[in-house]
Amino acid sequence: MASSSAYHAYRVCLIGSGGVGTIASLVLTKSGQAHVTAVLRSKFQYVAEHGWDIESIDHGTMKGWKPHRVVGSAAEAAVEEDGQKVEFDYVVVCTKQLPDRNPVAGMIAPVMTAGRTTVVLIQNGIGIEDEIVAAWPSNTVVSSVSHIGSGIEEPNRVVQVGKDVSKMGVHYGPSSVVASSTASASEADAEANALKKKKGEDFVKMYNAGGAHVCEFVDDIEAARWEKLLWNGTFNTVCALTRTDVGEIQRSKGRESLLLPMMWEIWHIAEAAGHALPDTIVQWMAYRLPDDCAYRASMLLDLENSRPMELEVILGNPLKVARRLGVATPVMDVVYKLLQVEAWKIDELGKK
Amino acid sequence: MASSSAYHAYRVCLIGSGGVGTIASLVLTKSGQAHVTAVLRSKFQYVAEHGWDIESIDHGTMKGWKPHRVVGSAAEAAVEEDGQKVEFDYVVVCTKQLPDRNPVAGMIAPVMTAGRTTVVLIQNGIGIEDEIVAAWPSNTVVSSVSHIGSGIEEPNRVVQVGKDVSKMGVHYGPSSVVASSTASASEADAEANALKKKKGEDFVKMYNAGGAHVCEFVDDIEAARWEKLLWNGTFNTVCALTRTDVGEIQRSKGRESLLLPMMWEIWHIAEAAGHALPDTIVQWMAYRLPDDCAYRASMLLDLENSRPMELEVILGNPLKVARRLGVATPVMDVVYKLLQVEAWKIDELGKK
Repeated sequence: MASSSAYHAYRVCLIGSGGVGTIASLVLTKSGQAHVTAVLRSKFQYVAEHGWDIESIDHGTMKGWKPHRVVGSAAEAAVEEDGQKVEFDYVVVCTKQLPDRNPVAGMIAPVMTAGRTTVVLIQNGIGIEDEIVAAWPSNTVVSSVSHIGSGIEEPNRVVQVGKDVSKMGVHYGPSSVVASSTASASEADAEANALKKKKGEDFVKMYNAGGAHVCEFVDDIEAARWEKLLWNGTFNTVCALTRTDVGEIQRSKGRESLLLPMMWEIWHIAEAAGHALPDTIVQWMAYRLPDDCAYRASMLLDLENSRPMELEVILGNPLKVARRLGVATPVMDVVYKLLQVEAWKIDELGKK
Repeated sequence: MASSSAYHAYRVCLIGSGGVGTIASLVLTKSGQAHVTAVLRSKFQYVAEHGWDIESIDHGTMKGWKPHRVVGSAAEAAVEEDGQKVEFDYVVVCTKQLPDRNPVAGMIAPVMTAGRTTVVLIQNGIGIEDEIVAAWPSNTVVSSVSHIGSGIEEPNRVVQVGKDVSKMGVHYGPSSVVASSTASASEADAEANALKKKKGEDFVKMYNAGGAHVCEFVDDIEAARWEKLLWNGTFNTVCALTRTDVGEIQRSKGRESLLLPMMWEIWHIAEAAGHALPDTIVQWMAYRLPDDCAYRASMLLDLENSRPMELEVILGNPLKVARRLGVATPVMDVVYKLLQVEAWKIDELGKK
């Protein structure tokens, strides 16, 4: 395993190797610009020995593929094989977002260098960068809204069926604060923000160089996150609660009675938070899939398999923003409370 | 099978023989005051031949028991074995309340005599007597709020574990209208209402004579129905939606986040409809069962077994009353819409 990074521009640590994370580590490795250390947990032993078998719409078929280094913990990633401390340029987080069980700030602490390491969150939800900004205020935080379709088949097979399409952008402060006018930023702030932007753009260039289908750098990534929440906060949550696939919730008229009102609630929170989405987007998002679509949303799969759901970042955090900004969310409130009961059941099962 | 009713004060037709209906037919038969014809549907052939095997906390053990007459349809009940038309004094309805599939007015039409037959509804929900009052305005409508615990084990075993405790009372008009002051009633109305009350009281006397644990005649049966809805509209619906037993919904804190707010919504609808319940009742209803109670509500059992749920009379009708009277019901609204999706799924399965 080559641990030298002499020929790479950046040192990258990537945490979480599900379908999304493994393709990201492949893309970054293929870019030629990064020395990539992947932190695996449950899969470490198997993948360290056998590598990944990949079947990808973007990258073709690969057998036994590995990034430059595979380790079993972030603490291990932080120390070179020769005992030297590693200073990472980028830490890419592709884990499930479960702030109550496994906060990202704690997970990445061993591989962070204050003032240097940029954190890239390829994860779902709203407000997920706040804990990172709070812990490392001078570091850059990038987040990605990904539309990739990629999953794992046990033990080490990655199947990517949907192209790697994403938007990335820099968070200059906590998400939950109404977007401030740049005119009010001081000169020092402006300079720091320009440096942050450069780090974000460099990551996006590297990601495109690695053969991702398309990765777009955007100035308002928050808006893109709220836009994705129009789906994740509605179809994903209600299909989980009612055990329906996309076609079923549409044919049952649940789209009109529940999803559309929830989408408008999200639209209004985003607007109040300074991210006005086009008002045609709600109709587009609600009606883009056919009525016989058998897609089963990720939260439904989690619920059916008693795995923890990303409820807090998908509904909990948006509702906190809504309360702070005085936006009414009657439907989201109740769906959230009902899913909290489901989350409690999953927790209880986990204790057995 | 004795069809003569010469020695009985009343002719009774009883429709629906689940756990509740069979015990009611036993009580009425035992009273000695009624000639009872039971209308069975799916169970007719088997019970006509073998009768019921009953194990009852109120009535002991009986094998092969039958009421005076067992028939397969209301049309058959309406005609004596000698071809004569029967005029019933009471038609007792103990079916599941499914107005969309099987409206009671249509079900009982063959056994009704205008101006004579009193309808007794031993059923769940709100507003269930409106269709009867509309179809037979001069007939008496009695409804019962029953707390019996009784069920069927296939094919013909009735097991009654909870004592037959109920309240019965007369409906003098549609439930959804705010209870009017009796002072405004005309003299003719007052006389008609007194006759209706007498028919209700006579039925209650007969029911008690038959060995029911206790059946109380009350003046405001609507209030008792709203009171029972504090349970049926909350624990029953939310436990179904979240697939939880009573203890689970309590331990998950769903009682505080969902059930208590819903109970207050119901309390406020009842108040607006002229039936002020004591305000201590909400706390009592919410906290009367222990946190390890494994009771599975009837709507949950229906949902788990893909049987139609009594959703319209338990949430749909109360919400119509709320809209008419301007009472806000944000939690009930969403729970209702989510259960409509579940009801759609059950309907779809039924079509396959």
